[in-house]
Amino acid sequence: MIVCIVCNFVAAVAWEAGKPLVIEEVEVAPPQAMEVRVKILFTSLCHTDVYFWEAKINPEAPLDKVCVLSCGISTGLGATLNVAKPRKGSTVAIFGLGAVGLAAAEGARIAGASRIIGIDLNPNRIEEAKKFGVTEFLNPKDYDKPIQQISIHMFIDTCLRCPRVIAEMTDGGVDRSVECTGNFNAMISAFECVHDGWGVAVLVGVPSRDDAFKTHPMNVLNERTLKGTFFGNFKPRTDLPSVIEMYMNKKLEVEKFITHEVTFSEINKAFDLMLSGAGLRCIIRMDG
Amino acid sequence: MIVCIVCNFVAAVAWEAGKPLVIEEVEVAPPQAMEVRVKILFTSLCHTDVYFWEAKINPEAPLDKVCVLSCGISTGLGATLNVAKPRKGSTVAIFGLGAVGLAAAEGARIAGASRIIGIDLNPNRIEEAKKFGVTEFLNPKDYDKPIQQISIHMFIDTCLRCPRVIAEMTDGGVDRSVECTGNFNAMISAFECVHDGWGVAVLVGVPSRDDAFKTHPMNVLNERTLKGTFFGNFKPRTDLPSVIEMYMNKKLEVEKFITHEVTFSEINKAFDLMLSGAGLRCIIRMDG
Repeated sequence: MIVCIVCNFVAAVAWEAGKPLVIEEVEVAPPQAMEVRVKILFTSLCHTDVYFWEAKINPEAPLDKVCVLSCGISTGLGATLNVAKPRKGSTVAIFGLGAVGLAAAEGARIAGASRIIGIDLNPNRIEEAKKFGVTEFLNPKDYDKPIQQISIHMFIDTCLRCPRVIAEMTDGGVDRSVECTGNFNAMISAFECVHDGWGVAVLVGVPSRDDAFKTHPMNVLNERTLKGTFFGNFKPRTDLPSVIEMYMNKKLEVEKFITHEVTFSEINKAFDLMLSGAGLRCIIRMDG
Repeated sequence: MIVCIVCNFVAAVAWEAGKPLVIEEVEVAPPQAMEVRVKILFTSLCHTDVYFWEAKINPEAPLDKVCVLSCGISTGLGATLNVAKPRKGSTVAIFGLGAVGLAAAEGARIAGASRIIGIDLNPNRIEEAKKFGVTEFLNPKDYDKPIQQISIHMFIDTCLRCPRVIAEMTDGGVDRSVECTGNFNAMISAFECVHDGWGVAVLVGVPSRDDAFKTHPMNVLNERTLKGTFFGNFKPRTDLPSVIEMYMNKKLEVEKFITHEVTFSEINKAFDLMLSGAGLRCIIRMDG
């Protein structure tokens, strides 16, 4: 068994990687010392759940917490606000405009970035992205032609187009970038598109098992910084109240992330929606 | 002409990459507006000069400043103090125990690191390294046997031994590492040997043209940071006085770096010493 999402004494069980979850009655041991039982009213899925379900990443990671926290939005938001930390008026590139990337854009908007460049292969993302503060949209497919190698420091065999285009758009590179796809070419692009001297790239997207991050060391020596984060460096116990506060005082606009809703017994629909890239977040009602 | 080191109206000229420099009389234009002429009494070489001389790196870089500042020691020192910033009592790994690496160790010593692990292929470095605060010595050759892959996050084809050995020595990894060799396997090791969650690796060594820095993205996502620096992030005009102050109040011990001295006309000896790895720094007397 790989994934098990429990609602009261009914569980949605993935008996096989990537196969539809099966709703089954289960026995749940009563809470032991230092344990509590939590009643979850609503939850949601993010791509990390899909990766676990497809058994693409190491199952050592804390799966139960991933499910409980529905981490995607906090992760993207935190990656920008806690790790990339763009200054007011700075330029930020966001790779991938799914829910995590749009949350990262929302973080850049809240931080007061003056330009937020969104990068995605899907042109349908443009209108949605504008709601999250994205000021410019870049589709790598529009630059899908051979170009000259502009620097010995960049590999011709990697996704070169974005860093080059972004460098031209921003007089040398963005101040910050946040990678939210998990695609290793996007990771490399996110690192190579930040400005020499002060640029910071933050990796958020969860990669496949065998991917490699590869760049010319000179790109590092040129005083760029590469960082990674899980859950946007938010410490759930102490830091989540600040996210709720941002929501309560209307700085953070959460409603625009919610595009679908299903009951617990319809959980496979939520997986289908995630896989087809339709909408952003699907709320799962755990009492349904 | 690739390298030219001028002393009064005599120059040491490298007419060809890697060939001995030729002492020649030259004409030097008088200083123009916004220029000054500087009388240099002593200078020194570092490996970066050798790379330029061998035309191994992009000649766009500011060669004149490299020569004037004899950057190696400030670079190593600054990489630790300004970029890696180890806390008092922390553990630091230094890759490469030439002058730059020993300066990085000196920086860690000054910062109050409790353990400074020096990594070098040359066992003769041990005694020298102790003078610079290195508390433990690691020779990758001593671990030159096939080992089990300990994590899906590490590549079996890269220099795996050091991160594994260092992780065992330090209960998961060092707090900071500084890479001072320019070898890309050492760069990868330096990154993979820092602790998940807070570890910072700083790349200092200048790589060859075609090297790649490669790691599994999960190593980044595990909240490690990778940074690079030129000249240890010292701004020469404003920051070098602080280095001189450290020397004057005996916090920084510069004398232990100086192992040889030649006159300007013997400059090729300085290159020979550098290439053979004999000693640390050779002072070139510019009036000789």
